[in-house]
Amino acid sequence: MVDVKLFGLSPSPFSQRVVWALKLKGISYEYVEEDLSNKSNLLLQYNPIFKKIPVLVHDGKPIAESMVILEYIDNTWPENPLLPKDPHERSLVRFWAKFIDERTKPMMSFFTYVGEQQEKAINDNLQTLRIIEEHALGEQKFLGGDRIGLADIALGWIIHTLAAMEEIVGVKFVQADTFPLLHAWMNNFREIPVIKDNLPNHDQILDYFKGRREMFVKSPHACHHHH
Amino acid sequence: MVDVKLFGLSPSPFSQRVVWALKLKGISYEYVEEDLSNKSNLLLQYNPIFKKIPVLVHDGKPIAESMVILEYIDNTWPENPLLPKDPHERSLVRFWAKFIDERTKPMMSFFTYVGEQQEKAINDNLQTLRIIEEHALGEQKFLGGDRIGLADIALGWIIHTLAAMEEIVGVKFVQADTFPLLHAWMNNFREIPVIKDNLPNHDQILDYFKGRREMFVKSPHACHHHH
Repeated sequence: MVDVKLFGLSPSPFSQRVVWALKLKGISYEYVEEDLSNKSNLLLQYNPIFKKIPVLVHDGKPIAESMVILEYIDNTWPENPLLPKDPHERSLVRFWAKFIDERTKPMMSFFTYVGEQQEKAINDNLQTLRIIEEHALGEQKFLGGDRIGLADIALGWIIHTLAAMEEIVGVKFVQADTFPLLHAWMNNFREIPVIKDNLPNHDQILDYFKGRREMFVKSPHACHHHH
Repeated sequence: MVDVKLFGLSPSPFSQRVVWALKLKGISYEYVEEDLSNKSNLLLQYNPIFKKIPVLVHDGKPIAESMVILEYIDNTWPENPLLPKDPHERSLVRFWAKFIDERTKPMMSFFTYVGEQQEKAINDNLQTLRIIEEHALGEQKFLGGDRIGLADIALGWIIHTLAAMEEIVGVKFVQADTFPLLHAWMNNFREIPVIKDNLPNHDQILDYFKGRREMFVKSPHACHHHH
């Protein structure tokens, strides 16, 4: 009997995090792909405050917010832990997971802005990636150790989702010569069998974001929204 | 031997969180009050990336980011737990802690803005508090149960720090008639002996923010900064 259900959206970085965590834990679940322009009644019922994906429903109880869901998954299914046991190592992984989580939405703004604002957004992204390159990565394969964890899962979206946005806009943030550690990290992440088998479909993501971009550049107000 | 050191700033909501958590756990520590215009070499050494308070140093190892520090404290000293044992209840507390944490800085912007922007910031604050009133609080004394936890500690700053800002600006967000549950929560929080004994000094906080406000309204660019 399936008692785990995930309401998600394949191109969403936040949704992908939960898929990877469940797969790494080997949990079988029912997946419901949401249409954000026509959200299901179940999604609205399970996340009435924010009405956002992803929502994980376990034994009928909903949990929202991707990073909160990851902690829940790690608490509930301790096999293949997403956090180190040692409290200090744990705090380092949580520090980077939080940093990456907070920068995820801002990192997508280069895709919706144009002109000067886009240039600024591109520079902000390079700065964010520079911090990760110089402070979070070292000789270890992953963020905070030699095994995949919470912070890696948070950052994993840059491999396919950010890449699709980069392709459409015509930029490439992580190159082997400018960000050698991040470049190696991307390969390490992608090479984990469970991740390799559960990366979002490239063409599908590209189509999705091409549609989104048309929507954004059509709107005359798109570039005036600060927040 | 004191092996726990906290670098903080009394008027800072983020710093207060760590003080309360350490006091609730009964951990003795050395406190170093920082001067943000002249940060100590130790702070810069312990938090070289962001150079921000609070930083907790335990056995020589630094941890930054208040919410990450709270999780570390709870992992390291399990007595008086800040999170429920049950994974689902735990996820609810973490959900609200994250929500409150993400809104803390934005909630202070009414203090630095003027005119139309200030009005908007005031409305945003009321909306944030409305969400907490209607969805996070109920018959329980605290956020997620009958004992103080992670989310309460995150929100505790509204009692003294937000209150000082309100006093200076001339607004009052939480009234007994408009936000009865939040009003009761504030009393519940304040009445915990460890909290009562470790609230920041009212006059000191007021002086601090009066100085800050003078600095902000003097600057002609203050109201043009979006981010």
